[in-house]
Amino acid sequence: MRVVLGSASPARRRVLVDAGVNPVVRVSDVDEDRVAATVPAESGPHAVVTALAEAKARVVADRLTADEPDVAADCIVIGCDSMLFHDGVLTGKPHTAAAATAQWHRVRGRSAELLTGHSVLRMSGGGVVGAESASTTTTVRFADIDDATVDAYVATGEPLEVAGAFTLDGRGGWFIDGIDGDHSAVIGIGLSVVRTLTTRLGVPVADLWASAGPDVRA
Amino acid sequence: MRVVLGSASPARRRVLVDAGVNPVVRVSDVDEDRVAATVPAESGPHAVVTALAEAKARVVADRLTADEPDVAADCIVIGCDSMLFHDGVLTGKPHTAAAATAQWHRVRGRSAELLTGHSVLRMSGGGVVGAESASTTTTVRFADIDDATVDAYVATGEPLEVAGAFTLDGRGGWFIDGIDGDHSAVIGIGLSVVRTLTTRLGVPVADLWASAGPDVRA
Repeated sequence: MRVVLGSASPARRRVLVDAGVNPVVRVSDVDEDRVAATVPAESGPHAVVTALAEAKARVVADRLTADEPDVAADCIVIGCDSMLFHDGVLTGKPHTAAAATAQWHRVRGRSAELLTGHSVLRMSGGGVVGAESASTTTTVRFADIDDATVDAYVATGEPLEVAGAFTLDGRGGWFIDGIDGDHSAVIGIGLSVVRTLTTRLGVPVADLWASAGPDVRA
Repeated sequence: MRVVLGSASPARRRVLVDAGVNPVVRVSDVDEDRVAATVPAESGPHAVVTALAEAKARVVADRLTADEPDVAADCIVIGCDSMLFHDGVLTGKPHTAAAATAQWHRVRGRSAELLTGHSVLRMSGGGVVGAESASTTTTVRFADIDDATVDAYVATGEPLEVAGAFTLDGRGGWFIDGIDGDHSAVIGIGLSVVRTLTTRLGVPVADLWASAGPDVRA
């Protein structure tokens, strides 16, 4: 059973590899702003991350049907999207040092919600034969760090290209006092919810391990 | 500033490396049962993991003083110990498949507490000039997986040599619905609490990064 990860995120790929799966990576280059704009405001933030996850997985599945029939013959495709929800605002990647610094000044010493949308498509015989999606919420408690520490962290460059300007699995881990929820969802792909979705599609987790040897973690 | 990790755990080392620190690893081979036996029962489970962490760090520091004066001249030494606390019992590594299976049958669908003791020693001029220790509690919510899934997980061998028979950062992540607390403490070294302890000893986190380049995460 092949697993196709529709994401360029090395952190998501690593979660899967560490969890015994060797995914094929296919990047969707979905226009995220355009997709998000199609979600009615009253649907709420979970609908946004779920729609983005579904759009990414669908684009990847369509391309597999067209270009990689051997993969589309039998695989699951996983799309994900993560954003930080704080004070009623959904925040993605800051991109600049100034935006990352401002983001930390807003959240330090406080909690925010990390929302992760997941879409899992079951492909068989070249087409999509089953689809499940779900989103998760994880509370993230940011440490109350001083300006010098924020500056030192931002200077590493790490927070610029990650949702909410922090990582859990990198240098950012020093400055997160704790979380309440699925830690892998904070990194970008919630293993527990993906397990639930693939099981609904008839694929138990142990089948996903088949493509990787028991020594994959090294 | 050198960081000495007094642990053979590759998971602990990886948390530090991913968080920007390139530790020197020195294994303590403390007799854990003997140390645990010195802790009065009425002191409680946190006293056990803290005493074990302190014993490991002290053994490593003593050896550095004796054998590696260049390191003992200026470093911090970190000792850690993790155990699962469930139904009033502290559980370490199961070692056998039968014990790992029994452990999962006890905890699936329930929560348990992962306790992690941390000891940080500041060494300067060849000796220990400061010591701080603390323990953390993280609630772990185990998924309610069926017998076949427990068997498939145990068959990978992963749960045999980890405290509580699960990992958060490996295949076990599929079967943890969520946590409440510091995810890195569950892996074996709580970055947030280590930051607090090193800061008390006059060493901010950014000083620990000095030994590693910004590209350490690859």
